[in-house]
Amino acid sequence: MHTPISEPTTRNAKATFNHILDAAIELFYKDGYHRTTVNNITKHAGVAAGTFYLYFPSKLALYKHVLITFSHNIRREIAAKVAVKETRYEKEREGIKAFILLAKKHPQMYNIIYESLYIDRALFKDYYESFALRYIRGLNESVKNKEIRDIDTEIVSYVLMGISNFIGLKVVLDLGNNNDDIDYIVDQVMELIKAGLFR
Amino acid sequence: MHTPISEPTTRNAKATFNHILDAAIELFYKDGYHRTTVNNITKHAGVAAGTFYLYFPSKLALYKHVLITFSHNIRREIAAKVAVKETRYEKEREGIKAFILLAKKHPQMYNIIYESLYIDRALFKDYYESFALRYIRGLNESVKNKEIRDIDTEIVSYVLMGISNFIGLKVVLDLGNNNDDIDYIVDQVMELIKAGLFR
Repeated sequence: MHTPISEPTTRNAKATFNHILDAAIELFYKDGYHRTTVNNITKHAGVAAGTFYLYFPSKLALYKHVLITFSHNIRREIAAKVAVKETRYEKEREGIKAFILLAKKHPQMYNIIYESLYIDRALFKDYYESFALRYIRGLNESVKNKEIRDIDTEIVSYVLMGISNFIGLKVVLDLGNNNDDIDYIVDQVMELIKAGLFR
Repeated sequence: MHTPISEPTTRNAKATFNHILDAAIELFYKDGYHRTTVNNITKHAGVAAGTFYLYFPSKLALYKHVLITFSHNIRREIAAKVAVKETRYEKEREGIKAFILLAKKHPQMYNIIYESLYIDRALFKDYYESFALRYIRGLNESVKNKEIRDIDTEIVSYVLMGISNFIGLKVVLDLGNNNDDIDYIVDQVMELIKAGLFR
């Protein structure tokens, strides 16, 4: 899933590159991938039309870059929060909370990730499979340490991703109640999975 | 969220109506909502262009009808399977399994439901909020019967919808392993939520 983009090297080039990225994220969110043109993006970014192709061979390559950037940011943010926690219980609690806060901060996240299902189904598959693989590694450690019960860790990873995803949607789209009280929500979620998953 | 469509009354009209629906579902799945035109739909359905407007005032009204139809079918199918089960545990197991089998039978389901996020965010909100409301009613009964622990049933409903959704995606898109063995997957999922949710 390589995106042959040309990363900028100078400070000016980096600023231009980021303007293009930010404009693309905003427009993909607002109008969707298919209705957004390269022309829309450069106009919105306030850069010359040709500038786009200095960095990206196509709109698809830019979209892939956005998707990978989201993916890396989510992983890095969660990993940083989780790393300072000792137990698997605390790690899960912190991971779910970090995901919700991130989704709240970047409401475009869902649209842009889900949209991969329409742009190229392989992107969607790759996104969640590679997310799951990293999750499974951590869960396997916790099975070994007898921190969690011996349930198929691949299935556990999809269950936990599904929980974070839908609880995140609930908060971001304000579905139902209590969406301002993230700690309450996370506590209730942990209450539910605690005795089932942890021993 | 009313869709002012004209339901057909004669047998011939019903057949035409269903041809249009099937064509729309196929094209929305393949090309997405925005790239599919009314013209594409009538051509694919093999009906005269004007026929479309006998039933649907617009492409959006048709899309809403498709979404509502999916929603009703999912609810009805799950409700039928769940109704014959006695305990909340058996009901949940059967509900998750029915959802996965339905998603496998209609792989267009995810695309068309998720796409509401791009077409009209209110549709997506309404879809999951009304799904949650019915779920919560059943869960509240089970709290009263002391079949499940006293956890916020709205949050429980989103957790369980998230689990079904992601486990369904895993099976439909064949993410990771064991996707042919639905019973194994459902058993592992229930193993995880059992001790946490049920008492």
